[in-house]
Amino acid sequence: MIYYIVEKKDDQLYLIENMLDKRYTLKTETNFSQCNGYLGVRASFETKMLHESRGMFVAGFYHKAGQHEVTELINCPDLIEMDLRINDEDFYLDTCKINGFTRKLNVMTGELDTYVDFDLTKTKNIKLRSRRFVSLKDRHLICHQLEITVAKEAMIQIVTGINGQITNSGVSHFDKVENRVFDQKYMYTKNRCDDEQLFEAMTVCGAQEALQNSSFQLKRRSVLGDYQYNLDAGKKLVFTKYSYIDTGTINDHSKIEAMQQSLINCEQMGYDNLLKEQIQSFDKLWKYAKINIKGATLEEEASIAFAQYHLFGMTPSDTSDCSVAAKGLTGEGYKGHVFWDTELFVMPFFTAVFPNIAKNLLKYRYKGLSGAREKALNAGYEGAMYPWEAAKDGREETPLYAALNIHSGVAEKVWSGIKEHHVTADIIYALWDYYKLTNDKEFLQAFGYEMLIETANFWCTRAKLSDVTKLYEILDIIGPDEYTEHVDNNAYTNYLAAENVKLAYEAMSALKVASPEVYHLFTEKYKLEDNIVTWKTFLEHIYLPKVNKDGIIPQDDTFLSKKKISDIERYRESNLKQSILKDYSREEVVNMQILKQADVVMLLNLMPGLFSEEVVKKNVKYYENITIHDSSLSYSAHAIACANIGDMELACDFFTKAMEIDLDTNYLDSNDGIHTASLGGIWNCVIQGFAGVKYSMGYVEIKPHLPNTWEEMQFYLMIKGQYVKIMITNKKIVLETDQHLNNTKEKLQFLINGEFHQLEEKLEIKR
Amino acid sequence: MIYYIVEKKDDQLYLIENMLDKRYTLKTETNFSQCNGYLGVRASFETKMLHESRGMFVAGFYHKAGQHEVTELINCPDLIEMDLRINDEDFYLDTCKINGFTRKLNVMTGELDTYVDFDLTKTKNIKLRSRRFVSLKDRHLICHQLEITVAKEAMIQIVTGINGQITNSGVSHFDKVENRVFDQKYMYTKNRCDDEQLFEAMTVCGAQEALQNSSFQLKRRSVLGDYQYNLDAGKKLVFTKYSYIDTGTINDHSKIEAMQQSLINCEQMGYDNLLKEQIQSFDKLWKYAKINIKGATLEEEASIAFAQYHLFGMTPSDTSDCSVAAKGLTGEGYKGHVFWDTELFVMPFFTAVFPNIAKNLLKYRYKGLSGAREKALNAGYEGAMYPWEAAKDGREETPLYAALNIHSGVAEKVWSGIKEHHVTADIIYALWDYYKLTNDKEFLQAFGYEMLIETANFWCTRAKLSDVTKLYEILDIIGPDEYTEHVDNNAYTNYLAAENVKLAYEAMSALKVASPEVYHLFTEKYKLEDNIVTWKTFLEHIYLPKVNKDGIIPQDDTFLSKKKISDIERYRESNLKQSILKDYSREEVVNMQILKQADVVMLLNLMPGLFSEEVVKKNVKYYENITIHDSSLSYSAHAIACANIGDMELACDFFTKAMEIDLDTNYLDSNDGIHTASLGGIWNCVIQGFAGVKYSMGYVEIKPHLPNTWEEMQFYLMIKGQYVKIMITNKKIVLETDQHLNNTKEKLQFLINGEFHQLEEKLEIKR
Repeated sequence: MIYYIVEKKDDQLYLIENMLDKRYTLKTETNFSQCNGYLGVRASFETKMLHESRGMFVAGFYHKAGQHEVTELINCPDLIEMDLRINDEDFYLDTCKINGFTRKLNVMTGELDTYVDFDLTKTKNIKLRSRRFVSLKDRHLICHQLEITVAKEAMIQIVTGINGQITNSGVSHFDKVENRVFDQKYMYTKNRCDDEQLFEAMTVCGAQEALQNSSFQLKRRSVLGDYQYNLDAGKKLVFTKYSYIDTGTINDHSKIEAMQQSLINCEQMGYDNLLKEQIQSFDKLWKYAKINIKGATLEEEASIAFAQYHLFGMTPSDTSDCSVAAKGLTGEGYKGHVFWDTELFVMPFFTAVFPNIAKNLLKYRYKGLSGAREKALNAGYEGAMYPWEAAKDGREETPLYAALNIHSGVAEKVWSGIKEHHVTADIIYALWDYYKLTNDKEFLQAFGYEMLIETANFWCTRAKLSDVTKLYEILDIIGPDEYTEHVDNNAYTNYLAAENVKLAYEAMSALKVASPEVYHLFTEKYKLEDNIVTWKTFLEHIYLPKVNKDGIIPQDDTFLSKKKISDIERYRESNLKQSILKDYSREEVVNMQILKQADVVMLLNLMPGLFSEEVVKKNVKYYENITIHDSSLSYSAHAIACANIGDMELACDFFTKAMEIDLDTNYLDSNDGIHTASLGGIWNCVIQGFAGVKYSMGYVEIKPHLPNTWEEMQFYLMIKGQYVKIMITNKKIVLETDQHLNNTKEKLQFLINGEFHQLEEKLEIKR
Repeated sequence: MIYYIVEKKDDQLYLIENMLDKRYTLKTETNFSQCNGYLGVRASFETKMLHESRGMFVAGFYHKAGQHEVTELINCPDLIEMDLRINDEDFYLDTCKINGFTRKLNVMTGELDTYVDFDLTKTKNIKLRSRRFVSLKDRHLICHQLEITVAKEAMIQIVTGINGQITNSGVSHFDKVENRVFDQKYMYTKNRCDDEQLFEAMTVCGAQEALQNSSFQLKRRSVLGDYQYNLDAGKKLVFTKYSYIDTGTINDHSKIEAMQQSLINCEQMGYDNLLKEQIQSFDKLWKYAKINIKGATLEEEASIAFAQYHLFGMTPSDTSDCSVAAKGLTGEGYKGHVFWDTELFVMPFFTAVFPNIAKNLLKYRYKGLSGAREKALNAGYEGAMYPWEAAKDGREETPLYAALNIHSGVAEKVWSGIKEHHVTADIIYALWDYYKLTNDKEFLQAFGYEMLIETANFWCTRAKLSDVTKLYEILDIIGPDEYTEHVDNNAYTNYLAAENVKLAYEAMSALKVASPEVYHLFTEKYKLEDNIVTWKTFLEHIYLPKVNKDGIIPQDDTFLSKKKISDIERYRESNLKQSILKDYSREEVVNMQILKQADVVMLLNLMPGLFSEEVVKKNVKYYENITIHDSSLSYSAHAIACANIGDMELACDFFTKAMEIDLDTNYLDSNDGIHTASLGGIWNCVIQGFAGVKYSMGYVEIKPHLPNTWEEMQFYLMIKGQYVKIMITNKKIVLETDQHLNNTKEKLQFLINGEFHQLEEKLEIKR
């Protein structure tokens, strides 16, 4: 059940709270975060609350606060907080008498709109509306407007500026802070890290009306403007605050003038015109991103749009210097690190609809090759092994040890950074998906081939030839299911590793024939001829787990011999994640047939042709029965798998659960940030699951399994530079080309109902 | 007017708030701070408030958070905060319905006692009493007890532990934090700074009653216990929390076992027995510290006791590794730095009543000699020039530049650290006061002589021989009045410097005769013979400003030629400090006859025989007329001066103002810490002012000027190891020896009514 009220009006979709339940403060701060891929601002209320967790994060703005700390996304100085006093009395949501309250996020525009009608002790009947958005047109901008009306003439005092006392839960990142006020108006801060990174912000505040007094004050690490107004009864005080944020290094050219110019421009435009621009910018995205479904519930429609709103918000759009953090730009969770979530959960949306953004995400991994090489080398392997957690560069950022066990005092090793290796193959999988859909040979040549070669080389040294079986085995590994550790031949990892090597082998073999001159660019650096032989041998001898006598694909060599437990439902239904660890030790859980999250099921989704339909069905059911879904990545994977095998009841059930990961009524969830993988997974459910879209080299397969209630769904894919509108009903599939981004208008191939079709301009196929 | 209600009951003195006015939260957090010379804990309420400023400070526990930060007293992890939930509803003072509220500090025991009768939405009629104190017996201990009663059976949940997310206004000092729970009960934290300093704390919480559940959780930098109780109607839940705090370096022996043993001991004793010990410990102090006054108002009595309570709290009692911070251990103000406030305002109480503590304060300055030598050397002088602001060692800690001027972007030089030099002479003045009263030759030999020699050498190079006057002049100086800068021959500084050199000269000359063998200990290191010649020359030629034709001592060479302004009253009456700087630039103020604080008047107090009674009277009035008292050090100095000249109306007026520096109704004051110098000044007013006590070599003069209303005052002084009870009425002065701390029972000399008296056991002198 979704906690928020959903409203649709004039094609806008709103998530709404119409009362203030303070238990949900942190959850809503996260969910209603305003992010534009560069900047993320939590939806904290302007005035301070007893429970709150303010945060602003800038993509790629990482820092390590000391040798004992982990590199993390910096929680930046706050620009949202305002002290509001009316007739010399403080206004707080915690303490005022609230007569009316509405807070809504328009997921189509990213505007957060809060309305409070309240009484103070001395002043009654005050109406406050706050609206704000982070700009999509200029991603450095926050536009913010308060409107206040009073029933009787009143003195309104607003104190706001730049608060640099914000820390990451008590850890400060800046070692030098300078504050200024330019032209008696523009507050500015320059915050420097010890590694010469710089955060700059400038803000300008004010209202046209009846300013009585304004002054500026300096507090430690903060600069504040104090604005006092005499507001007549019934008149509206419109107080705007425009803030410009930038990051860089101390060697960069100072941004002060440009920042100020941007703010002057905002002042001239005004909030409403800036909002119009925002709507236009979002409309350009939604034109191809929006999935229109007849028959979907309003909650389904809003949840999908909410997921996409956040997909836009979490993903850097115009740089390849950073990637998607596990909580996007919405909280301190997971320290802003980049996991496989990006490539397998978030990227598919961009690969399919905005491939240039997907390309940036892949280029980020290309830039991370040196870190991946370093990681491989340190672990005794060749080639490039991608880090389990990445941040600024490609280095492994997973801490070696977890926090001390508070009772034993022992700091346990964090094995995921050491032993969870499938991320390397996942990245290559995503790379190839991108290539299949874009045919972007330039990307391959500039970046992709190297990634393929280096990762294939890694796997060839990671796998060891067994004396017994004479096969290459991948021993002592952690697969996607983190409730098993140190196992041998995790099926997911072995298959994906083989796919990785196969793609490298095929790509380079094909390149040698097609473009020998390009091929030769790589031969010197990589001893390609030798590599290709190695890859071939690897592919001939890699151990790929087969179904057992019961038709089950073993998750790893020992998994199916472990005991099951009967009372899994209580853990699945628990409001708390990982509740099983309260009843069993980690050691015990590792020795059970219990999955934290989809593992073999992920494999079945990613490599759909691998097993017969019957085996797939059997395995989806088998593993579903023993999966707790303690990871937010799991529901969407199972939803896709169930849709693909046509079990629509389960598919819809999992889809609902995936939609509710962030939006449900459990106020303990999402407090430290959204679940980016799950949000990506929602789009994947719809497109890969219900629409049944799969990419192959040279064609796209569409094999829909729509939920019963859905009469028609319509969405766009960009295939080889052409936007294709796809409409699916129970009776037909209609394909139509739209915008062409490249000159060569290639005819696109589709596999539908087991038959190939070629799209020229429009194609209608009966189901 | 004092903001607090004063109550006296069973010889206990209470400062009381009987309603919660949240504007005063920070002020009361400061004033009701609980400090024992080692540990200072602000009187924040247990549950979080919208406006609060939590703080715990450990004497001498300084750290510099980075090259751009100033060394400061660390705001340590919090042990006071508790989350309290009743029937699953949060309790906050900001949000509950308060039916009754009392918060009182017993200044005789340091116990803080808060009582709240409140309703929540779901649960009515809840009574909460919180009591706590920092132990005087074991200065590492905080004892804390909550009592909760409910009208109907209720679930009580208390979450508390150690919160290491506290920062100094956004600046974190610890770079490694480890948290543990020992024996499923004792929460422990180890916080490390990058300079290997260590903060450790252990805490144990619990109640005897009906524990339903308890568990521990780790948050970043924090460890918390979660205790849940089922409380019957009418029954009392008594929840205690004992916390042990220690500091040191990572090379120290781990304190864990000892800490745990202390807590076990607390658990066995129980809060009430621990409080009994606390009362006994305080009684030992009060026996000789308490000033009993017949005829004083309750407010006067409480203010004096309040000042002494804080004098105990701010002053390290058993170490000479640190000294008194300008805000004691009660707030982040002035970064915990040590100023001249210590020697001239705080120390007199200890010199007179607890000379061993005064000795420690002087030894702290002895240990700081190397830093003072360094400062002198860097400035081109010989000997030792004490820092204007000191912290851990004797180095100058005054920042070279102030924060940027927010408008101009210019960081102005902080001149006090560069040019305010009188602190060196002030320290020697205090040293000699100590010697006059204790006759502690051992101290002189071990520490004092070196301080005298080095400081005298400094002044001889600081002063320059004028070509014109052929006198030594001290040019480009800042005196106590910081509204004049870069002046020549500040009278206060010149006279004190001369006194400093004179004391060195006389002490070493006397030593040479009395103990040639001791004298020779210093000759080699210091070329004493040469020095003595230099000092003599200096003393013969130092320029000591004389009264002008109007009988006024010029504050400096140009002061009396500057213009006066007529509207000084508005700045004296302003609630805001330094309000004159809103109307005039600093440059303009420097060129006016306007004093921030007592300057010449301080000189008159410190060196009472210097000028005729008539000149003193004239100058006190002259300077009083042009002093704004923008420094909290000023009122007490003027009160003493006025008492000494018998202007009792003004004296009492200033005494009242001094008493109210921290306690008045201005809620903007004291938020970032108490005014230690002012609190010391209150004692000085009473003893140096009203009782008219002055020390000379070999005798103590008593020349009282009691306020009209005071019928009798009685207090103790320790003179040469003997406690002497002094009773003063309008008719007589009675002296009586009490405890003897040394074996040689020297007969003490007193100068009363212009006649010398020798005290054997008791002496009664008519006035």
